[in-house]
Amino acid sequence: MAIEHGVHSEVGRLRKVLVCAPGLAHRRLTPGNADDLLFDDVMWVENAQRDHADFVNKLRNRGVEVVELHDLLAETMAIPEARTWLLDRKIIANEVGLGLLDDTRAFLEDLKPRELAEFLIGGLATSDLPAEFRKSAYVSLAREATGVREYLMPPLPNTLYTRDTTCWLYGGLTLNPLYWPARHDETLLMKAIYEFHPDYVGSKVWWGDPERDWGLATFEGGDVMPVGNGVVLVGMSERTSRQAITQVAQALFAAGAASRVIVAGMPKLRAAMHLDTVFTFADRDVVTVYPNIVDGIHPFTLVPGSWGVDVIDEEGRRFVDVVAESLGFKELRVIETGGDVYASERQQWDSGNNAVAVEPGVVFTYDRNTQTNTLLRQAGIEVITIVGAELGRGRGGGHCMTCPLIRDAVDF
Amino acid sequence: MAIEHGVHSEVGRLRKVLVCAPGLAHRRLTPGNADDLLFDDVMWVENAQRDHADFVNKLRNRGVEVVELHDLLAETMAIPEARTWLLDRKIIANEVGLGLLDDTRAFLEDLKPRELAEFLIGGLATSDLPAEFRKSAYVSLAREATGVREYLMPPLPNTLYTRDTTCWLYGGLTLNPLYWPARHDETLLMKAIYEFHPDYVGSKVWWGDPERDWGLATFEGGDVMPVGNGVVLVGMSERTSRQAITQVAQALFAAGAASRVIVAGMPKLRAAMHLDTVFTFADRDVVTVYPNIVDGIHPFTLVPGSWGVDVIDEEGRRFVDVVAESLGFKELRVIETGGDVYASERQQWDSGNNAVAVEPGVVFTYDRNTQTNTLLRQAGIEVITIVGAELGRGRGGGHCMTCPLIRDAVDF
Amino acid sequence: MAIEHGVHSEVGRLRKVLVCAPGLAHRRLTPGNADDLLFDDVMWVENAQRDHADFVNKLRNRGVEVVELHDLLAETMAIPEARTWLLDRKIIANEVGLGLLDDTRAFLEDLKPRELAEFLIGGLATSDLPAEFRKSAYVSLAREATGVREYLMPPLPNTLYTRDTTCWLYGGLTLNPLYWPARHDETLLMKAIYEFHPDYVGSKVWWGDPERDWGLATFEGGDVMPVGNGVVLVGMSERTSRQAITQVAQALFAAGAASRVIVAGMPKLRAAMHLDTVFTFADRDVVTVYPNIVDGIHPFTLVPGSWGVDVIDEEGRRFVDVVAESLGFKELRVIETGGDVYASERQQWDSGNNAVAVEPGVVFTYDRNTQTNTLLRQAGIEVITIVGAELGRGRGGGHCMTCPLIRDAVDF
Amino acid sequence: MAIEHGVHSEVGRLRKVLVCAPGLAHRRLTPGNADDLLFDDVMWVENAQRDHADFVNKLRNRGVEVVELHDLLAETMAIPEARTWLLDRKIIANEVGLGLLDDTRAFLEDLKPRELAEFLIGGLATSDLPAEFRKSAYVSLAREATGVREYLMPPLPNTLYTRDTTCWLYGGLTLNPLYWPARHDETLLMKAIYEFHPDYVGSKVWWGDPERDWGLATFEGGDVMPVGNGVVLVGMSERTSRQAITQVAQALFAAGAASRVIVAGMPKLRAAMHLDTVFTFADRDVVTVYPNIVDGIHPFTLVPGSWGVDVIDEEGRRFVDVVAESLGFKELRVIETGGDVYASERQQWDSGNNAVAVEPGVVFTYDRNTQTNTLLRQAGIEVITIVGAELGRGRGGGHCMTCPLIRDAVDF
Repeated sequence: MAIEHGVHSEVGRLRKVLVCAPGLAHRRLTPGNADDLLFDDVMWVENAQRDHADFVNKLRNRGVEVVELHDLLAETMAIPEARTWLLDRKIIANEVGLGLLDDTRAFLEDLKPRELAEFLIGGLATSDLPAEFRKSAYVSLAREATGVREYLMPPLPNTLYTRDTTCWLYGGLTLNPLYWPARHDETLLMKAIYEFHPDYVGSKVWWGDPERDWGLATFEGGDVMPVGNGVVLVGMSERTSRQAITQVAQALFAAGAASRVIVAGMPKLRAAMHLDTVFTFADRDVVTVYPNIVDGIHPFTLVPGSWGVDVIDEEGRRFVDVVAESLGFKELRVIETGGDVYASERQQWDSGNNAVAVEPGVVFTYDRNTQTNTLLRQAGIEVITIVGAELGRGRGGGHCMTCPLIRDAVDF
Repeated sequence: MAIEHGVHSEVGRLRKVLVCAPGLAHRRLTPGNADDLLFDDVMWVENAQRDHADFVNKLRNRGVEVVELHDLLAETMAIPEARTWLLDRKIIANEVGLGLLDDTRAFLEDLKPRELAEFLIGGLATSDLPAEFRKSAYVSLAREATGVREYLMPPLPNTLYTRDTTCWLYGGLTLNPLYWPARHDETLLMKAIYEFHPDYVGSKVWWGDPERDWGLATFEGGDVMPVGNGVVLVGMSERTSRQAITQVAQALFAAGAASRVIVAGMPKLRAAMHLDTVFTFADRDVVTVYPNIVDGIHPFTLVPGSWGVDVIDEEGRRFVDVVAESLGFKELRVIETGGDVYASERQQWDSGNNAVAVEPGVVFTYDRNTQTNTLLRQAGIEVITIVGAELGRGRGGGHCMTCPLIRDAVDF
Repeated sequence: MAIEHGVHSEVGRLRKVLVCAPGLAHRRLTPGNADDLLFDDVMWVENAQRDHADFVNKLRNRGVEVVELHDLLAETMAIPEARTWLLDRKIIANEVGLGLLDDTRAFLEDLKPRELAEFLIGGLATSDLPAEFRKSAYVSLAREATGVREYLMPPLPNTLYTRDTTCWLYGGLTLNPLYWPARHDETLLMKAIYEFHPDYVGSKVWWGDPERDWGLATFEGGDVMPVGNGVVLVGMSERTSRQAITQVAQALFAAGAASRVIVAGMPKLRAAMHLDTVFTFADRDVVTVYPNIVDGIHPFTLVPGSWGVDVIDEEGRRFVDVVAESLGFKELRVIETGGDVYASERQQWDSGNNAVAVEPGVVFTYDRNTQTNTLLRQAGIEVITIVGAELGRGRGGGHCMTCPLIRDAVDF
Repeated sequence: MAIEHGVHSEVGRLRKVLVCAPGLAHRRLTPGNADDLLFDDVMWVENAQRDHADFVNKLRNRGVEVVELHDLLAETMAIPEARTWLLDRKIIANEVGLGLLDDTRAFLEDLKPRELAEFLIGGLATSDLPAEFRKSAYVSLAREATGVREYLMPPLPNTLYTRDTTCWLYGGLTLNPLYWPARHDETLLMKAIYEFHPDYVGSKVWWGDPERDWGLATFEGGDVMPVGNGVVLVGMSERTSRQAITQVAQALFAAGAASRVIVAGMPKLRAAMHLDTVFTFADRDVVTVYPNIVDGIHPFTLVPGSWGVDVIDEEGRRFVDVVAESLGFKELRVIETGGDVYASERQQWDSGNNAVAVEPGVVFTYDRNTQTNTLLRQAGIEVITIVGAELGRGRGGGHCMTCPLIRDAVDF
């Protein structure tokens, strides 16, 4: 029977978390294809793996149970029905292309679960097929195709950011429709796990299903924070839309799982940013923020109402004040990105505000943001560092790279 | 009972064609939002309308029956079941957003068919709603959203290019899954017409359905040419993928509707271009081509075979030779983009090769490509010009702006 | 002896103006090289010439003497010393390249003055050389070079905007160091005219010399307006720097030619724009403005002072108010770009605010900005239109295309 | 009296080299201004300094005398005439701006030589001025300016790449006119050193002078290699033009300093790259190359001739063969960028081919290009690694970061 997962705050004790190590998908990245694959830069994969392993070790040393996506997917692919279910959805004419379905399926069916998981995340190129499958003119046709269409299964390098794909919000989760079509299959992998893996089967899904088309209703975990007290913060950005936010709020309210959703309307010029790139929690009442953006947030509050959801326009109020009030604080202690005008912009870029807490007052951040880290420490926060030279190149930090599965509530 | 439509060549007598006049969607374009709305430039809408009307008149003067998309959609929206069917698919939480559904639906239901068609194509902004519907904080939330998410129904300016959305291929048609998600609803409008309009209902659909998710299988009419003799040419480009091409070929072969599909593998550096931006027919054996690109095409031939479709790699052969052979010609007469190195690049950009024929040897092109037009005339082609100063700004010409519905075969 | 030139206002009777017709330089533009040649789009050159000729005719019909740059340069090149002076500065190793100097010079020396002027403005490609000069391996080397380095003399398509290169400010002029190195030679051509042409020799030059390096002190006429009453407005933008503005102010104050320079600090996000793309005069006290930008201008006033120039920071005041006060008006009548939020952004882009007056209350603007033109007419301004379909593609309007040489003062 | 400098090969014993440590200029970099300052990415400056110091230590351990630019400039600024000479050229109206000259000069004159050198390289912002100098409205004006015009002296972050600014070619040097105007002052700093520093004064300058305008004749050391045997290789790229190359060849031939210049005409699509980003020497006859680019090079040979320089078009020959022949080798041993198609593209991007030799068969490269490094080692090359996580972000490696001052010849 499934384990009971649930995330009840942003800073309560983190008991279990999902991460995804860098791997094959990142080995396929080049300066020329990084745009197509939606990744910001190329990385030295071996060192990124070393630094990610170090991050995982440090999490474990703090008592966190860490599960890794390749492992989880391999365990899932060891279950015959799960393998069938997922390959039935991946090895189709719309993705692999006619004429290559049988050979591709045959090749994948023969793989060990771990090998299959590697290709599901890392992508499958025609050059990965055995020689006897590569003679077909269909393979020539595939090689002539452009962008991700060349692949039999496109690489999914953004799996590194497990935060985005699913969100545990209190006692249930969302299976998120991500903004970029090229990332949709990340959620499909997660659905396979939640449908078949014995530790996850039966989990309550509030909203979302990668087998449906959600149109403009896109939702990414980097914008979502179940801060406790029945409150959920959601950034309304390029990637997380009002069409999705209102549906999630409706589902949470209907289930009695939350009583308030605070929407952070991101300034339009920087709309591509997730909320957690400019605002995260370090303690019950301590946030680290990048003021250049956060000062421009237009807040709204969603509450249960006549349509399922009522909207309150909080125009004129500061986002941090609306958040403070919702948690019963008079105000939040705000730690701004450190350093002068140059350093603070650079540190935001280097995920300086993208902290993830393992318990109240203890956070992980990148080592390179020394000035912001110093300010956090001066405020009494314990800061544990992640080596960011490689991992940071995809423009995500510790918060992005972690999907909490079990986290305690905190008192307010 | 429905009219029998069908397109049996690229240059046979054009008897009926679908176009779409510029309008509200283009009035919403600005230098700032044109990228989001996937349109290349802004235009002087009144003059674009004048020039489009002139194009339509000239088509009619040549005996072509011209139907216009706003008209066709208005006629369709006058049918209650069609209106219900389409609004049920457009006025949904994933697009309009919760909290705005009832007011939006109520507003649209009250409109006259023609007004409704205008908004379906031109988009619906919150500012278009009556004042009493604009008080809601949901409207504030929508206004704070970015890009097309601000709209209740996003504008569809690329409807101007009716060529892309549906393709008549001999006796049936495809309802194309377009590359950009922001264009998907163009095909939904067409489906409403083919499902409900008395002149179109019952048409044979070979492939495609805007209500399904087609993944990487995208298909755009600018890449597709039913040249006759059972042959279909298809450009394999950024927008038209092997995943779609092979499915369409399979469907055509299974129905006996075509015997050969020639795939033009576009050079990767210019993969964003449709085939008809560099290659169109002006007569039975006359093509106008932009050699800088066409010389780099890698051809493949698809024929009925063991998997439904067999692929023949024509590497090393010239695309125009593969096409000539398929039509039984020893060779095609090739008219290259005119002028020196500067002028030919500029004329390709200005849709100089994007000719559409109304009968063998009679084509419409933009007036501005004077050198290519002169070469066509010297080759005995009658060239009728379209004023391109405004219409050309979206980077599509006469071929892109026309979707043939009835065209005769030619003898080869 | 030279004619007495001088520009004493923005809206007084325009008696003489310099323009430059589209030509060879624009025939060389392609979508691929337009960035290198610093021109925004390609144009249909023949129609651009037709529309420019129409503009010139209309100016002449209003009593303006119009001189054209090709003509003026041809007259100048008919003077042997002028030809020698200019070719000594153009046909040098740093531009033409060693090994090609003698042949290039010999070719140019043999040309008629008009032909030479065409190449000086339109650029000289290796393919323009006679066959016997093209055999050299030096020519192969040139053809292998990239960007403008391929040319023996690079094309100067921005000569179309005569406004930028020189500015008559009351009784003298500036020979402007332009922002982009690729435009520097435009000013050199003008210096040849002012040094040798009998109508221009002896003119008073306040500042600037294309034979010197001005570093960060760049100055473009699109940012400069001698509005009368001893006042000069200057936009401080990407292209016109404080380093130049303060020097020009110093020179004007020292000569007693002006008593006040008002600097419009352009908002940083749109710093690439000239002042005259968002603000021009239509009458003594009437301006047409694009409020989205003009509302963000930070004004400064420069007056004669201890260092030659004193700076007054006008932070908090509206630019139009500072201008009004300087001219003795209580306020200016402000006509904003017309139409809704979409149309006004589009009209600004289409040079809707780039009016040039021929006398108080009579301006030339592009035809396409119908809404702004209507507002101007409703305010009592006579609006004469220029066909902008082609000319507007370089993103400059009537103000940019005219360099006033003689304009009367107005009373304030 | 000056030390005798000279560079007689690419791989002979390196005896003395100039480098420049990361510092203040890089602290000023942000994601927002990096484009303006012509630097590819932001870096963690402290770690970049640590890694650069480690590189310097390793060079010293191999017996190389390393001089650092801040040190050298500080020593130069300790000489009163040198300080006066340089400040007379930096603290001018065209750069600092009127009204700020005296205060800026006074501030800089009071600094210790080392402090002055820091600002000369790192730039001087208005916020660096003492409070009493910051009250002026001139400072407000400067703050309102955009891009590098805001600075009193712009930062010069590309000084990190000492290779570009000056080139020792056998017994003399060039003072290079760099492509981007924003880098011109790098060469001015070097001229101050060569004019005044006792170790450098009296050095023979073949060509170049930062006090003159060189127009299209731009020249960057990353494209230049004095390989020995009287041969110099020069990449003809976006940054290094035929106009400059032919002049340098003429000067070298006239002085009898070289007998042959081999020009590598870089493929136009990747014209922005220096030759040393795709081709460097690891031993007398061993080169490491990125074949995707090097295979497309069009070679020319320049030899002394009738015009000073004769050009031989080597079209159809491979660049590496032309180089081999010039050095008397039958062929070069070529080590291509390592790894599969993905890894090799990534390693080229990460400066994998940008090796610098300290003696025949001993090179420094970045640690991250493990596959190329392995291939070099398998070919018998000793590879010493530089930590590239930060230093590599500016897209330059060991070859770019070193300007050899004394290097021995090798036998061929």
